[in-house]
Amino acid sequence: MTADLGPAQARERFRAGLSTPTSGWCAGWTQANLIAVPREYAWDVLLFAQRNPKPCPVLDVLEPGEVGGALLDGDIRADLPGYRVYRGGELVDQPSDVEKYWRDDLVAFLIGCSFTFENALLTAGVPVRHLAQGTNVPMYRTTRRCRTAGRLSGPLVVSMRPVPAGLVDTAVSVTTRYPAVHGAPVHVGWGGRDGGSELGITDLDAPDYGDPVPMTDGEVPVFWACGVTPQAAVLESRLPLAITHEPGQMLITDARDGDYLI
Amino acid sequence: MTADLGPAQARERFRAGLSTPTSGWCAGWTQANLIAVPREYAWDVLLFAQRNPKPCPVLDVLEPGEVGGALLDGDIRADLPGYRVYRGGELVDQPSDVEKYWRDDLVAFLIGCSFTFENALLTAGVPVRHLAQGTNVPMYRTTRRCRTAGRLSGPLVVSMRPVPAGLVDTAVSVTTRYPAVHGAPVHVGWGGRDGGSELGITDLDAPDYGDPVPMTDGEVPVFWACGVTPQAAVLESRLPLAITHEPGQMLITDARDGDYLI
Repeated sequence: MTADLGPAQARERFRAGLSTPTSGWCAGWTQANLIAVPREYAWDVLLFAQRNPKPCPVLDVLEPGEVGGALLDGDIRADLPGYRVYRGGELVDQPSDVEKYWRDDLVAFLIGCSFTFENALLTAGVPVRHLAQGTNVPMYRTTRRCRTAGRLSGPLVVSMRPVPAGLVDTAVSVTTRYPAVHGAPVHVGWGGRDGGSELGITDLDAPDYGDPVPMTDGEVPVFWACGVTPQAAVLESRLPLAITHEPGQMLITDARDGDYLI
Repeated sequence: MTADLGPAQARERFRAGLSTPTSGWCAGWTQANLIAVPREYAWDVLLFAQRNPKPCPVLDVLEPGEVGGALLDGDIRADLPGYRVYRGGELVDQPSDVEKYWRDDLVAFLIGCSFTFENALLTAGVPVRHLAQGTNVPMYRTTRRCRTAGRLSGPLVVSMRPVPAGLVDTAVSVTTRYPAVHGAPVHVGWGGRDGGSELGITDLDAPDYGDPVPMTDGEVPVFWACGVTPQAAVLESRLPLAITHEPGQMLITDARDGDYLI
């Protein structure tokens, strides 16, 4: 079972070339989003994260020249299942490692991921549809804008999990206790197809990243801020270079989920 | 009563020249530490804050050229009761405004302050000695080191409040809910005079900043991380220029304490 693997074992498989969403992998170990930018844009990204802490909770920063650190006894350039490379506002590659793209002046940000609280949701009796399905979580660009920072601006990106109406309060209270990995939802519910939700999402079946999940009667879509938000910002802001994880294919760190529980 | 003033009224008095500790002022309004550094050091400071979130919770950042912002409908250069100016690791001035020192390339960080949760402590029945005395809170440089960031390193600075032994649990649980303004204590209790506390403090009656407070039998010293920590770091790291608040003489912001309650 991939849930029973340790982070080093999982990273070894990804380094060997396995490409897969990591939701449900390494139960109890914290997963993280990656965004690496040239040093001259690092201030903008860190300030963007500080001003938008719900989508961009910074877990650690690897300074220029570092490819490992306190959260990662490994190599950030190869230990994720998949990557994206953005140049000047275009997605130019989706490789399984990024050694050929890496530069010594890149600063890598590790950003909290909502997969961290999915184990706590299950423990509290809240089902997690994409885990049950074995697919990636659905993610959506919204019409809600992040606070701008320097040269970086962009929309809030959210992940969505359908929750039975009677368990929405449980889902909110459980995730509130994980503020470092997106915390409480940013929106609950759905205004219907006449114009979509308050977040400007018009079709739940067509996520911008990840896979759609079926919803059944009596379920409510619950939206959490998502660590893909900085990817949307580097795209919109046309940064000359950014290297990120493939959405849903996270870095599995050496930190425990409990480290981020309040 | 200064507790009943609004933030704009308080800032007007300070702009007019009043110099005073702000503990107990403007009940319900959030107070903040100030540290402004040249843009070329801003990355180091922001990364230092990110790596040391207990002492350095960033509430907002004013970019070069900004002297007001979302938390402050005013002028950061004059609206505090007192300032400190550091040059190359020396304290060179303690003026009541800093317009003559200000430069267009300065980046100002507003950092959370434990005064924010003192009202909540009082409401929960925990006495706050320096408030009762009408003095400044005692603050101490410790032997505990912060995580280094770029060119910035330094010791953890703490504030201390004596708490009746039977109320220590209350003080911890109340302040835990304010993580953006230092949150739970970093240390409770005192190992005695043979070597001082675990924090390396040898004499509670000789704080490094602020005023000493009397302790009575049955009280326990409780230590919280303090937003003076970046001042100790710019001093030790000999930054060419840093402008800060005078410890205990805070910026009173337009944000509500409740905004930082979890």
